[in-house]
Amino acid sequence: MSDGQRYAACVEYDGAGYHGWQSLKSGLPTIQQHVEAALGFVANHPVSVVCAGRTDAGVHGCRQIIHFDSPADRTERSWVFGANTHLPDSIALRWVRPVSTDFHARFSALARRYRYVIYNTPVRPAILPRGVTWNYRPLDEQRMAEAARYLVGEHDFTSYRAVQCQAKNPVREITSLSVKRFGDLLVIDIQANAFLHHMVRNIAGVLMAIGCGKREPVWARDVLEARDRRMGGVTAPPYGLYFVNVIYPAEFDLPEEALGPGFIAPLLNP
Amino acid sequence: MSDGQRYAACVEYDGAGYHGWQSLKSGLPTIQQHVEAALGFVANHPVSVVCAGRTDAGVHGCRQIIHFDSPADRTERSWVFGANTHLPDSIALRWVRPVSTDFHARFSALARRYRYVIYNTPVRPAILPRGVTWNYRPLDEQRMAEAARYLVGEHDFTSYRAVQCQAKNPVREITSLSVKRFGDLLVIDIQANAFLHHMVRNIAGVLMAIGCGKREPVWARDVLEARDRRMGGVTAPPYGLYFVNVIYPAEFDLPEEALGPGFIAPLLNP
Repeated sequence: MSDGQRYAACVEYDGAGYHGWQSLKSGLPTIQQHVEAALGFVANHPVSVVCAGRTDAGVHGCRQIIHFDSPADRTERSWVFGANTHLPDSIALRWVRPVSTDFHARFSALARRYRYVIYNTPVRPAILPRGVTWNYRPLDEQRMAEAARYLVGEHDFTSYRAVQCQAKNPVREITSLSVKRFGDLLVIDIQANAFLHHMVRNIAGVLMAIGCGKREPVWARDVLEARDRRMGGVTAPPYGLYFVNVIYPAEFDLPEEALGPGFIAPLLNP
Repeated sequence: MSDGQRYAACVEYDGAGYHGWQSLKSGLPTIQQHVEAALGFVANHPVSVVCAGRTDAGVHGCRQIIHFDSPADRTERSWVFGANTHLPDSIALRWVRPVSTDFHARFSALARRYRYVIYNTPVRPAILPRGVTWNYRPLDEQRMAEAARYLVGEHDFTSYRAVQCQAKNPVREITSLSVKRFGDLLVIDIQANAFLHHMVRNIAGVLMAIGCGKREPVWARDVLEARDRRMGGVTAPPYGLYFVNVIYPAEFDLPEEALGPGFIAPLLNP
């Protein structure tokens, strides 16, 4: 094949300083632009990458998966360490693996997983201010978990997607959605076959309104059934959002690894 | 008393962008300078603060304790929220509490506690690059824990202090020192009555040399007994270091609270 070998790669990034994943005509800094430049440097030719899920400005990636094609003869190690040398501190490749040309980072994906991390204290955080979403209102995770149950399954998520969302079909299947507290941190963990634009942040917004007592848990279902974005709540900030996994058919044999320090939690009290 | 009320306060900070705690004649940015300016704004007069332990450039604080005096009549809430409005995103007061004039942030402290966080993977971290110390060599935490046991107790820590350390007495008592692995993160947790300059980072440097197999666990004791800084290892980088607690006599009745998101760990695998 003229494009040579296809590779899958895993990208980790702190999205706080970037205008999202996708390269922009405006030239504003994006993750994609840096990754393509770094891989192009290693390959010694221009490289285009395709990602599993485009993340918005400020959203982080622990395990964004991409694919690219290159005729350049490089070891996995050369791709990873070569690219990382040419990437900013806030972006790194975790691994690169040759794959069959059947593999497509977006279309082969069976499911995506996100985590939304809320720091729930009266005072704003000084460490990781752009790595968590601060909510000073006491949140009841039981109420949020109850509300979350209404969203699990296959539904029309029109009420939970951005007005500018371009997907033709608003139906998605949420296969798991949990809300757990770890000390002052609340973690919303959500897996679906795919996500609509702003879907996780809109779900987080509704769950926080329910958690602080402004709304009842059943409101999550009322919003869903209305199929009207105007019924939903505020889109929650991007900083607490981490794209943490993409699931592919086992035949592609991609590496699994623990989440990096990007996945944060209070460990033990003093 | 002419200086009015004495207050204790808890400060959290991401030290990556600062030249350490202590204000410098050079005018380079420090945590102290920002905290004094913010409190001075709330008090409407210049405020001087005294801290429990001065941290170096790049070192973080989850629970740095300070005291200051002010005749200004302000509620605890006004101090905290007023100061936080005037502090950068990477510095915040957690609480302010009136205390008796017997209280001294430095001299009343019975013990200090630090954590040193090592991210131990072949590839550098993209998230929290200045919130962990990256070590690509596989570290054996059992060897490190074995070495740590030689350091517990009251010893002359001359070999573990910076050459420029100004303390008259090099004897300190380490009351606990543990090394634990949480997935790809190794956490060194150390408590002592007080610390010498660079003591935690020099201990971390010795433990990492032992963990990667360059040295045997007993080397930690050999270094200690030599009472010669030249026998020690490399001073480990500041970015993985968190000042996590200060312990005072119970009579001062200071708030205890969970560590903020500053205390980071891999939580659950994907």
